[in-house]
Amino acid sequence: MSGARLKHYGWGREDEGMTAEEQAFVLGRYHAKFAHDAFETKAVPRVEDLALRAPRVALPSSLAAFCTSERYDRVAHTYGKSYPDYVRAMLGDYDSAPDVVAYPRNEAEISAVMDWAGGVSASLTPFGGGSSVCGGVEPRIDGLRYKAAVTLDLRNLGKVVEVDQISRAALIEGGAFGPSLENQLKPHGVTLRHFPQSFEYSTLGGWIATRSGGHFASLYTHIDDFVESLRVVTPRGILETRRLPGSGAGPSPDRMFIGSEGTLGVISRAWMRLQPRPKFRAGTSIRFHSFFGAARALRAIAQAGLYPSNCRIVDAQEAFNTGAADGSVAIMVLGFESGDHSPDAWMARALECCADHGGTPEAAKGSDAHLEGAAGIWRNAFIRMPYAREFLTPAGLINDTFETAITWDRFESFHDKVKAATERAIVEATGLKGEVTCRFTHVYPDGPAPYFSFHALGRHGALLEQWQAIKNSASDALIEAGGTITHHHAVGRDHRPWYDRQRPDIFAAALRAAKRELDPQGMLNPGVLIDP
Amino acid sequence: MSGARLKHYGWGREDEGMTAEEQAFVLGRYHAKFAHDAFETKAVPRVEDLALRAPRVALPSSLAAFCTSERYDRVAHTYGKSYPDYVRAMLGDYDSAPDVVAYPRNEAEISAVMDWAGGVSASLTPFGGGSSVCGGVEPRIDGLRYKAAVTLDLRNLGKVVEVDQISRAALIEGGAFGPSLENQLKPHGVTLRHFPQSFEYSTLGGWIATRSGGHFASLYTHIDDFVESLRVVTPRGILETRRLPGSGAGPSPDRMFIGSEGTLGVISRAWMRLQPRPKFRAGTSIRFHSFFGAARALRAIAQAGLYPSNCRIVDAQEAFNTGAADGSVAIMVLGFESGDHSPDAWMARALECCADHGGTPEAAKGSDAHLEGAAGIWRNAFIRMPYAREFLTPAGLINDTFETAITWDRFESFHDKVKAATERAIVEATGLKGEVTCRFTHVYPDGPAPYFSFHALGRHGALLEQWQAIKNSASDALIEAGGTITHHHAVGRDHRPWYDRQRPDIFAAALRAAKRELDPQGMLNPGVLIDP
Repeated sequence: MSGARLKHYGWGREDEGMTAEEQAFVLGRYHAKFAHDAFETKAVPRVEDLALRAPRVALPSSLAAFCTSERYDRVAHTYGKSYPDYVRAMLGDYDSAPDVVAYPRNEAEISAVMDWAGGVSASLTPFGGGSSVCGGVEPRIDGLRYKAAVTLDLRNLGKVVEVDQISRAALIEGGAFGPSLENQLKPHGVTLRHFPQSFEYSTLGGWIATRSGGHFASLYTHIDDFVESLRVVTPRGILETRRLPGSGAGPSPDRMFIGSEGTLGVISRAWMRLQPRPKFRAGTSIRFHSFFGAARALRAIAQAGLYPSNCRIVDAQEAFNTGAADGSVAIMVLGFESGDHSPDAWMARALECCADHGGTPEAAKGSDAHLEGAAGIWRNAFIRMPYAREFLTPAGLINDTFETAITWDRFESFHDKVKAATERAIVEATGLKGEVTCRFTHVYPDGPAPYFSFHALGRHGALLEQWQAIKNSASDALIEAGGTITHHHAVGRDHRPWYDRQRPDIFAAALRAAKRELDPQGMLNPGVLIDP
Repeated sequence: MSGARLKHYGWGREDEGMTAEEQAFVLGRYHAKFAHDAFETKAVPRVEDLALRAPRVALPSSLAAFCTSERYDRVAHTYGKSYPDYVRAMLGDYDSAPDVVAYPRNEAEISAVMDWAGGVSASLTPFGGGSSVCGGVEPRIDGLRYKAAVTLDLRNLGKVVEVDQISRAALIEGGAFGPSLENQLKPHGVTLRHFPQSFEYSTLGGWIATRSGGHFASLYTHIDDFVESLRVVTPRGILETRRLPGSGAGPSPDRMFIGSEGTLGVISRAWMRLQPRPKFRAGTSIRFHSFFGAARALRAIAQAGLYPSNCRIVDAQEAFNTGAADGSVAIMVLGFESGDHSPDAWMARALECCADHGGTPEAAKGSDAHLEGAAGIWRNAFIRMPYAREFLTPAGLINDTFETAITWDRFESFHDKVKAATERAIVEATGLKGEVTCRFTHVYPDGPAPYFSFHALGRHGALLEQWQAIKNSASDALIEAGGTITHHHAVGRDHRPWYDRQRPDIFAAALRAAKRELDPQGMLNPGVLIDP
């Protein structure tokens, strides 16, 4: 990781971004899509030019060593990385900037900030890498009961504290970023092997709080499965669960905090289950004439009990957009890996499942196959994609994604309904035909996790409204057709209207009651997930 | 299932039990163990001879069609199947008999019973198969605030309502017993394949409420993993979660009810993930000179990502007790099965792991291997074991089990401490050397689920106190050494003192708050898991 500071606008650090060549490729696809040679492009305000209110609260000297009200810190902690975040930041709207950003170095300092924030009636928003795409880290307290907003950035709690080689587990602090965490594990020959798309700019605590979806496309998908025990700082005190490989002692305490999105406490450390570093790999990509054919092959693989580490499918248009195929075929990216044994028998059976459904594998197969051919091209595009939004948004393009899960029996009609509703909404909102594509990010024996991307040419001055209209139609369709409003992007603020329809009211009442017990003042991340 | 009624004392139905030959084998082992030719044997009172208080509440005519205060029903719903249950029943102590037993035929009748019980300040205890071994179904309300005790037996809600072949899932009512549920699934070519030891006399709702551990020894172990969605009747109303293969939308609602042991609501139906019926099997048993050697082999298998369906180990003494070996070797029972492919490559690698740790496989290997050799003998003993307690307890023998989970790094010292503490407690409580054996029931990459059995010769008149002293010492040792008080037997009443030490107080406060919201009167299963 470079020493440059994190961008206030965009993905990653200030010295990073897509190359000119990458930008040209991405923009070229949009030029072709909308038959435009160039897009009207707005300037993004610099940090020093933003209008920022004076802090609504004075920082006590006892906290000054690790808290600040500096302009850059407040600006860089106002937004996550969602499409509306990029638009509002481009418009210079920093009304919701936190008044104070705290960088605690230990649990005592987390508790000290909680105590102080409670005393001054401030909200407190836990902040990992800030990669939320659903309004999960923005301290939007206008109209609520809070007098100030404090953001708690966990970056100073980044250590791997202990590695247990025998049980293959490690005690890791909540603020550890992906690359740092893996670098600390590497000398021990182990890996957490959790690689969400945000890997470089997200943290262990953030992954757990948002039920992040990672590397594994089958079997172990969510970070949930890797949590062995948790330590959580709440306004009521610190709690720690036992390190256990399994337990049947009442409802799982860990599962109450996994997915709590900063509303119940701050995850300060966790014992995490690890994997051996892979020694054996087999991978390839398989072409299908139809996306639904690819889906049926994937269902066969998922129900066969083969547990590939990677088994994603990408529809023909999305494969074209990333450069992985020519637009006439859907692609399956299939991989097995193991630290213990050759996965050849597993791969052979998976390829039979593909052949049964009309799939044709690429010739290349081998230990580096995940870096080669269509699989490699798609993989690289996937990793680099987050860097695109910082130049697409100023160009007036609306590009966003949403993801869900649905059982297999309903998948095909679900896909068609959601895709059609989103396409219709794009035309209604922008007056122009857009594009909606689909891939699977994760797959289960009882259903896939479809991930939709959409592309529209918006109009400066109306981008937020246009985006919201499309988002509303897509989300309505998805919820009506039986899906979940999020498989691994979390609820945050942006998904609340649909989450509130999805989750049983009686469960929400129970969760609110639990929150009142842990956070009596309702200071933790108000507006996110559940009302205090 | 025969038409005979369930025993009020013992396992299963009145026309079932161990054969004379089986009884002689089991008792023979005890005769040898304690160098006794015969044990003083007490008579168990008949239902009609028990002293039973008059019902503390009158049944309204609106509920008379499915509720009763008949003697047999009240007696048969007083106890579960724990050791102290057998002793107290033998002593004729039926103080905690419910006043009313309800057999609702639909959710409306569950709600009607809840409403009525609330109105008369009665407790309400959900009852599945009554196989609890931790005081989970006994309505022990003495000294609490309830004026009567009502038990809700779900046996009339036993249907498989719908089968979704495409997603491999089924909607099943909460009161479905194991055999009936599997019989209804069989014509569809699918199976839930959840076979706890109590399979014949336990229900789907009971499994979910207690986080039952089933057939799979690795990968999918608890029933938790098979729950796709739940429908729960609470005093506040009915809630239903969405059918989803996976979701990241906040803390899982299902996980709040999984393991809630009847304290938050009554599970009326659930969509459950199914398996194809196995077509391919490979199985064998492997001999090891030491139990710890067998454990290290099992750790290698668990960490290799092979996911055997069965991989249990049994120490030398326990293998002898069941007739599976001569007492000089520990046994591993290892099996793979699949509805899709030959598991030979998986088995071959697992046997290499065994060989690395000094394991010697039996010659027999094949599709029926799980029914043959040491594996088959052990399997049969395992299934028949619950029938032993009804004649061992009247003979003054104390035989019980407890189970836990621990990470691998601590397992060997944990095993030695817990075993030694239990052996010491037996001598202190009974004045005689007893026996403590260990097997693994489930295994995870980060640790095993050890299952201990103990055998002591007790004294009539002191059996309860002797058992409790041994249980206390074993549980204290287990909790001090870092284990969980239960891996899959649940908490109930009997494990409360240790569960209360194990679970974080702050989590308990949150769970109590959730319960108050769902069950404001605190009527549901008071004393179990958590105080109202």
